[in-house]
Amino acid sequence: MTDNSPDRPREPIVSPYMPRYPDPMSNISNFKIIETTLREGEQFANAFFDTKTKVEIAKALDAIGVDYIELTSPAASEQSRNDCRVISSLGLKAKVLTHVRCHMDDVKLAIDTGVDGVNVVMGTSKYLREFSHGKSMEYITQRAIEVINFVKSKGLEVRFSTEDSFRSDLVDLLAIYKAVDKVGVHRVGIADTVGCADPRQVYEFVKTLRSVVSCDIECHFHNDTGCAIANAYTALEAGATHIDTTVLGIGERNGITPLGGLFARMYTADRAYVTNKYNLPNIREVENLVADNVDVNVPFNNYITGFCAFTHKAGIHAKAILNNPSTYEILKPEDFGVSRYVSIGHRLTGWNAVKSRIDQLKLDDLNDDDAKTITQKIKELADIRPLNVDNVDLLLRRYHTAKKTSTHIDILHGIDNPDQLEVATAAA
Amino acid sequence: MTDNSPDRPREPIVSPYMPRYPDPMSNISNFKIIETTLREGEQFANAFFDTKTKVEIAKALDAIGVDYIELTSPAASEQSRNDCRVISSLGLKAKVLTHVRCHMDDVKLAIDTGVDGVNVVMGTSKYLREFSHGKSMEYITQRAIEVINFVKSKGLEVRFSTEDSFRSDLVDLLAIYKAVDKVGVHRVGIADTVGCADPRQVYEFVKTLRSVVSCDIECHFHNDTGCAIANAYTALEAGATHIDTTVLGIGERNGITPLGGLFARMYTADRAYVTNKYNLPNIREVENLVADNVDVNVPFNNYITGFCAFTHKAGIHAKAILNNPSTYEILKPEDFGVSRYVSIGHRLTGWNAVKSRIDQLKLDDLNDDDAKTITQKIKELADIRPLNVDNVDLLLRRYHTAKKTSTHIDILHGIDNPDQLEVATAAA
Repeated sequence: MTDNSPDRPREPIVSPYMPRYPDPMSNISNFKIIETTLREGEQFANAFFDTKTKVEIAKALDAIGVDYIELTSPAASEQSRNDCRVISSLGLKAKVLTHVRCHMDDVKLAIDTGVDGVNVVMGTSKYLREFSHGKSMEYITQRAIEVINFVKSKGLEVRFSTEDSFRSDLVDLLAIYKAVDKVGVHRVGIADTVGCADPRQVYEFVKTLRSVVSCDIECHFHNDTGCAIANAYTALEAGATHIDTTVLGIGERNGITPLGGLFARMYTADRAYVTNKYNLPNIREVENLVADNVDVNVPFNNYITGFCAFTHKAGIHAKAILNNPSTYEILKPEDFGVSRYVSIGHRLTGWNAVKSRIDQLKLDDLNDDDAKTITQKIKELADIRPLNVDNVDLLLRRYHTAKKTSTHIDILHGIDNPDQLEVATAAA
Repeated sequence: MTDNSPDRPREPIVSPYMPRYPDPMSNISNFKIIETTLREGEQFANAFFDTKTKVEIAKALDAIGVDYIELTSPAASEQSRNDCRVISSLGLKAKVLTHVRCHMDDVKLAIDTGVDGVNVVMGTSKYLREFSHGKSMEYITQRAIEVINFVKSKGLEVRFSTEDSFRSDLVDLLAIYKAVDKVGVHRVGIADTVGCADPRQVYEFVKTLRSVVSCDIECHFHNDTGCAIANAYTALEAGATHIDTTVLGIGERNGITPLGGLFARMYTADRAYVTNKYNLPNIREVENLVADNVDVNVPFNNYITGFCAFTHKAGIHAKAILNNPSTYEILKPEDFGVSRYVSIGHRLTGWNAVKSRIDQLKLDDLNDDDAKTITQKIKELADIRPLNVDNVDLLLRRYHTAKKTSTHIDILHGIDNPDQLEVATAAA
């Protein structure tokens, strides 16, 4: 399961977060992404992608380097079928999949569109929930095997997935996965369709499944209860191989594992694997493309690209960040094509952060005591309202000039509220 | 650690997600919330809370029923000190805490404000990272004990926390926690200050800590890599007692465990505990209050209150939801004061979903074949662009009327694109 080929470029393992001893189960350094913005994402409330938009999104995802792109079933509508044809013929590096019900009719439609692989899903979990070990089990297993054999006979890749896997009967699940593995399915899929699974449960389940099948394991996690990224991570730790993502996590209800969030998580686990394999600085562009098309804003707190993701504010944090970013940053913003911002014009500021700004501005005549005096003034003013960086810089520069002319104490006494400073900044 | 008092109202355990056998370590049915929007949240890039706003937020959080409200250190600024005094004197049901450095000066300032407890934090993790077992360890342990004894002598609750706990030396950490537990600290705190921790790591760490100290354990998780909710959950499974949250998760960078997201997660684990203890329908109001004050939009995919959290779209989902919501919903929207929306006017729609809408509208003359015919028409039209519910309803009602006058086939042939339908809807 693990790629140890010598041509895989690797930096030395220096992250303190990587396991000290290798875990033979873990796939955190060899996972693959099945990007399903054009299938799961099309089920998002606001999504309506026309062919041109789908092509644009598919190309953008291909440029990031995702391993697979999954499309809506050609059985959904005439246009959906046409879109499968168009995207399959683009010549993308990513493999193109479509996601269809485990019916021979749907599978035939899929194969006709020219996709590289078919992701079949057992259309409902009711059999596995209601009829344990009954005739239905035999029936669906037979149908699955028939479908899988047919797809394989056409030379295509095939995955078999259940739905709502975490509320299904475990024995029935393992039985059907074992049966499809035996006939040579390329991947089995598990899906937390309602977003109820938790990380330890996922770990145990995938670990058990890993001992039952020899094929790849794909995982699909909804985010209703906030575990979609964490569940993907523990699934990979337990031996899963493929993770489903969408851009910004869009999908049914509040969506699934987001592509950017998965990058952030996996970067922390193995930076070299992620930076070598995926074109991370493209993430902002594809997020903006999708956000525009489904008419949402990128959330303020979005992973990596949210406006505050690399903003540091508390005095103690700002000081440390200015000295050594790794103290409060687990992700290097430059690896994702974004930049860091240290905020100092507020009442939580600290003199070390102000001193660092003094150093940045090369106001070398100001010493630590000056920095402390100015910091006290910033806190007083910012108790009224926050100051922007121009306001703070003006204070620093004026103090610096005044100090050189020996009047530096007066300069601060003359400024009693942020409005005065704003006027002075505008005039400067 | 577990509250088994008979007066705790409980519904029978029916959730399929609750462990079948009780886990003596787990605190998922007895956790407490330390709400830190007015401390961690004040470190959010856009946050500037004046006294009036802080009072309003504190009262709203108290109305939800959070166990603790944590405030910015009185040492941060004159106004911060005043705010501690004002909020401590409101007579809230929630206990009021302030979060200060482990310095006697800060602690004295804190106690003077009238808070119920002091959350002390060792101001930097550099000692624990750089100097293993050195003099610094003895020095900080001594200082911590001095501070804890002082707070206790004043009759207040005291917590001792380290920073960046998941990158610190484990032996040093356990040594200092053991030492402060011995002198009777009420809680120890661990903090994933940079957002690097993963759920299994958290579980192992908290389980180990649980075996070392007898006091409560508070956990603080940043969300840089998407594990803040999942880490809170596994921490509780391992025996942690208190979780730090903020409204919408606001805080340094992209923030910490969100209050609403934690509700969603814990509701799935033990609905009765969460619904009996917290006033869940208030979550939307307090989120809007905070969002307005920090000038952000509630993210489209926010837990529970995001506009799409309870929107169902795919045909197969919509059908099942209309029959039995629990098939695709792990959270009951009515428990959170929000409602469900099933979208049917798009190309992924299914005839069962359309049939359910027919039943809702009591168009009893329409049978399954009619539903299938209309569904095919909706798919054709929605391949051009999605239809809203009024458009769909008009189609259904016209078909129904036409069927009664035996002209129902013609009515659909006369509508070839969504614009015609829009005009007809406006005229109806």
